[in-house]
Amino acid sequence: MKAISILGSTGSIGTQTLEIAEEFPNQFNVVALAAGSNLDLLVEQIDKHKPEVVSISDEELIPQLKSRLNQRLKGKPAKEFPKLVGGPDGVNTVASWDHSDLVVTGIVGCAGLLPTLAAIKAGKDLALANKETLIAAGPVVLPELKKSGSRLLPADSEHSAIFQCLQGTPWSENARLSTGVPTPGFRNIHLTASGGAFRDWSVEELKRATVKDATSHPNWSMGRKITVDSATLMNKGLEVIEAHYLFGLDYDQIEIVIHPQSIIHSMVELEDSSILAQLGWPDMKLPILYCMSWPKRFKTPWKRLNLAEVGELTFKSPDTNKYPCMELAYSAGKAGGTMPAVLNAANEEVVSQFLKENIHFLDIPKIIETICEKHKNENKKDPNLDDILLVDSWARKEVCAEIKKY
Amino acid sequence: MKAISILGSTGSIGTQTLEIAEEFPNQFNVVALAAGSNLDLLVEQIDKHKPEVVSISDEELIPQLKSRLNQRLKGKPAKEFPKLVGGPDGVNTVASWDHSDLVVTGIVGCAGLLPTLAAIKAGKDLALANKETLIAAGPVVLPELKKSGSRLLPADSEHSAIFQCLQGTPWSENARLSTGVPTPGFRNIHLTASGGAFRDWSVEELKRATVKDATSHPNWSMGRKITVDSATLMNKGLEVIEAHYLFGLDYDQIEIVIHPQSIIHSMVELEDSSILAQLGWPDMKLPILYCMSWPKRFKTPWKRLNLAEVGELTFKSPDTNKYPCMELAYSAGKAGGTMPAVLNAANEEVVSQFLKENIHFLDIPKIIETICEKHKNENKKDPNLDDILLVDSWARKEVCAEIKKY
Repeated sequence: MKAISILGSTGSIGTQTLEIAEEFPNQFNVVALAAGSNLDLLVEQIDKHKPEVVSISDEELIPQLKSRLNQRLKGKPAKEFPKLVGGPDGVNTVASWDHSDLVVTGIVGCAGLLPTLAAIKAGKDLALANKETLIAAGPVVLPELKKSGSRLLPADSEHSAIFQCLQGTPWSENARLSTGVPTPGFRNIHLTASGGAFRDWSVEELKRATVKDATSHPNWSMGRKITVDSATLMNKGLEVIEAHYLFGLDYDQIEIVIHPQSIIHSMVELEDSSILAQLGWPDMKLPILYCMSWPKRFKTPWKRLNLAEVGELTFKSPDTNKYPCMELAYSAGKAGGTMPAVLNAANEEVVSQFLKENIHFLDIPKIIETICEKHKNENKKDPNLDDILLVDSWARKEVCAEIKKY
Repeated sequence: MKAISILGSTGSIGTQTLEIAEEFPNQFNVVALAAGSNLDLLVEQIDKHKPEVVSISDEELIPQLKSRLNQRLKGKPAKEFPKLVGGPDGVNTVASWDHSDLVVTGIVGCAGLLPTLAAIKAGKDLALANKETLIAAGPVVLPELKKSGSRLLPADSEHSAIFQCLQGTPWSENARLSTGVPTPGFRNIHLTASGGAFRDWSVEELKRATVKDATSHPNWSMGRKITVDSATLMNKGLEVIEAHYLFGLDYDQIEIVIHPQSIIHSMVELEDSSILAQLGWPDMKLPILYCMSWPKRFKTPWKRLNLAEVGELTFKSPDTNKYPCMELAYSAGKAGGTMPAVLNAANEEVVSQFLKENIHFLDIPKIIETICEKHKNENKKDPNLDDILLVDSWARKEVCAEIKKY
């Protein structure tokens, strides 16, 4: 029985993790939940999963949550009432909860950074769905991982694919701790990209792209922020940086190929030219389950992948004109230091402004480029946590200032 | 430095193995060659690779080989003149040659059985390209493998793909010795089939299929017999039986999917619904090299697989009406005992008669079915080597008798 904590329990990753816990009641028990502000769903989750501790972002909602729970759990044994905590300390309590074996980090954006670090310091294994943490704070996270012995299991479907292809190799043992030990026989990885909502749109057509267009992903059901990131291909760029830290790869060892059907989730190329790939339906439940069951595989009744039914898998090279965000991410990754944190914070802020319809879709890469350009001479090598938090808030402010010009 | 023996050095697998040995002069040295009757090529191979021992099928060719070598190696040091052997004993000498670490068995058909057994008894690791040995004599070969500790490395591209996908799992260690230990987490395998020369022909059009048509494979450059087997899909059926023995699988754990581009070489499906696949150009050199370098990977300058260049991979279910041989193989495999040996011998003889234009392409499955049907009540469970050799020659004779009716 593995005890699970979930950061972001009412989000896309969180709800899918809870579905898995329900499907495998003899394998997993949910001991800790941290949620944003969706009280209705949170109360339902508490009733169903009976966690020991629950955190809510906005501390002021605790009394309301308490009374809702009293109503819902009326007459039930006192042990079904969880400890309630809130605010930044609350989410850290959930992240480092003593009884937990694995922390699933489904908080979107850089907000996941501090609780992820709290989980690592407490020596927890992590199912990392919050890629922004590693992207912004790789230089801070990696040494903490080594110190505590925590293991970073990738829940992103692409990195899960790489991780699955590398199972059993001595290299993957090292890679999980991101020591970057080169493997004999390993050449590079190929991250597949669906191409997102606009894969069949021309650059000209993109000028008319709306928020509704950008938040309708053709294959994957995901949160709004990551769906926009898929449409700009920034998501793939961020995954390149994530792969750099997770697997200890140089940037020229990480390639991107457009694969609209999202069936091959990524590939490992070996030095003899052989390629190993992992395939599955585009459903986040499989990579999340693999983090939870690893190193085992659990038997699921899920629909089997039938390639004859899929019919065809297609591939093409990404169009760098159409997707400038991809190149911005490669550049920021290669620059290293605090630059990836700036890229990530600028992207988060710009996407949030786009979702509020304050800017146009094609403005997204332009503004991010401007902010990264401004940071160029300030880029700090070997940053500490304060450096990262500082540039993060600087970049967000800069985006807001920049947007006023638009 | 690994010392290599090659059975069938002038054939398709043999010549490709020698090419690899040339590409990696610091990794491999060729110590023993067994060839059929292509003296010209054999003399060239001896001059280039300087083996310690050479066998030629037809003993009476030894004097001629000797004089050709004397001419060619004139003035060279005596140690470059190999020991010359011939006939069935000769090939066994090569198969069990003391200085050899790995025996590549590229002899086509059941003729490879006795030398393969000789190599196993001598404790040699094998790169098995001769699938007929395992198909006809699985019940005899497997106990010998366990006894001697020889390891069977699959050189067939499909089985190599499965083997590569299973690397590092405890199961693959067992699977190599075919102990059939079930793996936690393993569900089944998917063998891909190009569909062969007639994949785009209708059953009606097949009535007009010539030998030339059947021996033109769209993707793979292989020997004539296996190319015809690809056109009938008997090759895939035989691979199903091979996989049953190699990986210890039940027949309902082995599926076939038509994949015309031959880029995905086969797949492993896990119980959680994840699929691992191995990809590469359709070129036998990669699976042969992997047998030779295993468990390492050697760096090659070979053309890298570029999926954007390939563009699309397509898949469909095999048409059992068009490919009755596939079902015949499943049935023979499930019947077990001496039945797979009968199927294999009948197929070898029928294909050889087809290549001589004595029968029509569509007669191939009909005659094989007739012979298997005749053997039904004689099928012997737990056969020994004599039983297998007996039914092998019986089936060949039956085919010749049957063909007279055509």
